Amino acid sequence: MLRSKLLSLVPRATGSFRTMSTTTKLTTVEVNDKTGIATLTMNRPPVNGLNLDLLRDLRQSIAEIEGNKSRGLILTSSNPTIFSAGLDIMEMYKPDKERVRAFWTALQDAWLALYGSSVPTAAAINGHSPAGGCLLATSCEYRVMLPKFTIGLNETKLGIVAPMWFMSSFLSVLPRREAERALNQGRMFTTDEALQIGLVDEAAGTKEEALEKCAQFIGTFAKVNPIARALTKQQFRAAELEQLESERAQDLEKFLFFINQPAVQKGLGIYLESLKKKAKN
Amino acid sequence: MLRSKLLSLVPRATGSFRTMSTTTKLTTVEVNDKTGIATLTMNRPPVNGLNLDLLRDLRQSIAEIEGNKSRGLILTSSNPTIFSAGLDIMEMYKPDKERVRAFWTALQDAWLALYGSSVPTAAAINGHSPAGGCLLATSCEYRVMLPKFTIGLNETKLGIVAPMWFMSSFLSVLPRREAERALNQGRMFTTDEALQIGLVDEAAGTKEEALEKCAQFIGTFAKVNPIARALTKQQFRAAELEQLESERAQDLEKFLFFINQPAVQKGLGIYLESLKKKAKN
Amino acid sequence: MLRSKLLSLVPRATGSFRTMSTTTKLTTVEVNDKTGIATLTMNRPPVNGLNLDLLRDLRQSIAEIEGNKSRGLILTSSNPTIFSAGLDIMEMYKPDKERVRAFWTALQDAWLALYGSSVPTAAAINGHSPAGGCLLATSCEYRVMLPKFTIGLNETKLGIVAPMWFMSSFLSVLPRREAERALNQGRMFTTDEALQIGLVDEAAGTKEEALEKCAQFIGTFAKVNPIARALTKQQFRAAELEQLESERAQDLEKFLFFINQPAVQKGLGIYLESLKKKAKN
Repeated sequence: MLRSKLLSLVPRATGSFRTMSTTTKLTTVEVNDKTGIATLTMNRPPVNGLNLDLLRDLRQSIAEIEGNKSRGLILTSSNPTIFSAGLDIMEMYKPDKERVRAFWTALQDAWLALYGSSVPTAAAINGHSPAGGCLLATSCEYRVMLPKFTIGLNETKLGIVAPMWFMSSFLSVLPRREAERALNQGRMFTTDEALQIGLVDEAAGTKEEALEKCAQFIGTFAKVNPIARALTKQQFRAAELEQLESERAQDLEKFLFFINQPAVQKGLGIYLESLKKKAKN
Repeated sequence: MLRSKLLSLVPRATGSFRTMSTTTKLTTVEVNDKTGIATLTMNRPPVNGLNLDLLRDLRQSIAEIEGNKSRGLILTSSNPTIFSAGLDIMEMYKPDKERVRAFWTALQDAWLALYGSSVPTAAAINGHSPAGGCLLATSCEYRVMLPKFTIGLNETKLGIVAPMWFMSSFLSVLPRREAERALNQGRMFTTDEALQIGLVDEAAGTKEEALEKCAQFIGTFAKVNPIARALTKQQFRAAELEQLESERAQDLEKFLFFINQPAVQKGLGIYLESLKKKAKN
Repeated sequence: MLRSKLLSLVPRATGSFRTMSTTTKLTTVEVNDKTGIATLTMNRPPVNGLNLDLLRDLRQSIAEIEGNKSRGLILTSSNPTIFSAGLDIMEMYKPDKERVRAFWTALQDAWLALYGSSVPTAAAINGHSPAGGCLLATSCEYRVMLPKFTIGLNETKLGIVAPMWFMSSFLSVLPRREAERALNQGRMFTTDEALQIGLVDEAAGTKEEALEKCAQFIGTFAKVNPIARALTKQQFRAAELEQLESERAQDLEKFLFFINQPAVQKGLGIYLESLKKKAKN
């Protein structure tokens, strides 16, 4: 694994890495034998767009980490400038009826698994993290971000509406006044701004330093009973988790209704065109 | 209109103003043709006391602004030292049975319209803003306040209880600890204190500067899809809006029961006497 | 009473103290005749462990203070280094079936009485305040803490889970992000850290100064209508109070199920052994 190789070159990285054998293709899980912490890396070129396959792999990797009794989970990206570009618009533009249902269901599943994860979670945000990327980061318990990137829920800028549970993740990190304003503005925060407002907890100069700081955060639970910790976290997050659990079907229908509006399809089409032009330049 | 005239004298105010023809008498709506932002001015001498008529006019003006697809709404006062003195005590002291019901219902309607408004909202707080005045200000998304005035929910000092939805507006702006303490104390904040604690977002030296800063805030939504923005805001505020929607009847009965207590009537009577004495001096 | 004697030696303490005649044995209530403020002192050596008896006395003293129309309630400890060590583990280790039910019910009652108290409440935290001690302190409206002590909900470090209503008290004081992290970590804050994060409101050099600052806080309600204040506070805290009221039976069963797990009993046994060893050294 490239990831392992890179890390093995860094002098201060301690412990050996064990790559788990999994059937996932778009994520990798590496457990540090010394610390027991699992690093979950998203690896779907070019921008870690969250499509059906990546979401399913994410969920499977989270389940695997829970099952292996890891000491913690660090979420990061194999891409040097993008953590995750968010939901893959190709899943929403002129969507296949069956696939788009499976896609949204996989997104719900991935969020329920990550936000409700029993192990300590941290995000090493080593690149831009808009929309769904920000959702993943704010679903973790801690965030360390590299400089000169941006993070935020910018859905309104794309003409779409972040569902209630995106807001829940955001509100578990930001005060109401800040959260509402940023959501309405579709605001992307620079690393410095995110640090200032509390959207991320620490800045780090390199990915390795970010992983190290995430590991230090997870280390603060070393003397804590893991079962009591898991029950405490899940009780703290119960209202938000239960809300989606009990409204999954309506949440799906709401998304399908919204995404099938001609105006929304048109907006997504224009956005896709602009992406293509950018790619050419 | 006096308001238009005053503004036309200010060199840096840009754009022309269009006064909407409406049947309201206690509020005026002016839309800036250049920015598309509507300024909603409360104009009920002497202190913009929120009585049945002003509340109905407020609600109608908000509806008009929504209907005209304005880019935003700025709420302000024609009075140079008072934004709004809050609920008109004359509506609550020795009240007529039918009118007091209509009064409270109009207050509920005005709050639902303003707090749930689909357009960006900001308050240019150009004077004191106690009780109901603070409710209106905190129902907006942004607040700019002139110096040397005060703002707060001071109901407990008058011997009355701010209903749950007043608290909701307050809590959408302040942290719980600060909100509860200020509510219990009936605390009025100076402009500086309000700025420090986050009850207002910016200070401005003049009303024109306050209007300008409100317009700048509304301008941050220029590149945002207005429908996605409106749905996002309403989803964010849904729990509070739905709570009052579903409890309107009980909320009204609770208010009527409370206001008809002899001790409350006596307290209001004493307060009215003190106001009369002040007026004489 | 030792408490009265000590206070009478302090030159700046004003007013005389009246000790109420009560049937409680582990708490004392003294009302300052001048200020009308009641000081409720926990006095169960060696560490104010919250057992069935202390919890019942606490609740009775709170009821007495409410009944006597005191101007406010200051909660403190007769122990010079411990505010309260939290729940008495002897009530949970190899528990008697009937007594452990009565114990948890008394804890629910004490919290409902303190968190929902109609009079202004403040805690003079004159010693360490872990777990249940922190619950009592955060159920008050204001906290003044002496230096070099610690406070926090450290349940996860003991292998137990703070119930939802412990979290409610914590969340009425801390932002979500800080509250969740501290809960999961079982973090104990020093006085300085607690002040920084807002877990306490002021620091004081001595117990007398802490009592004085608590009295000053209660004095901020001097010009407030006490009935309107009480209704406002209770409305603000209604959701949390109603949640426990409506789920008391399930909350009790949840606690009994958890506490009777062999792993939890084993953990408590180990913890008790470590306490005994400490006591010997």
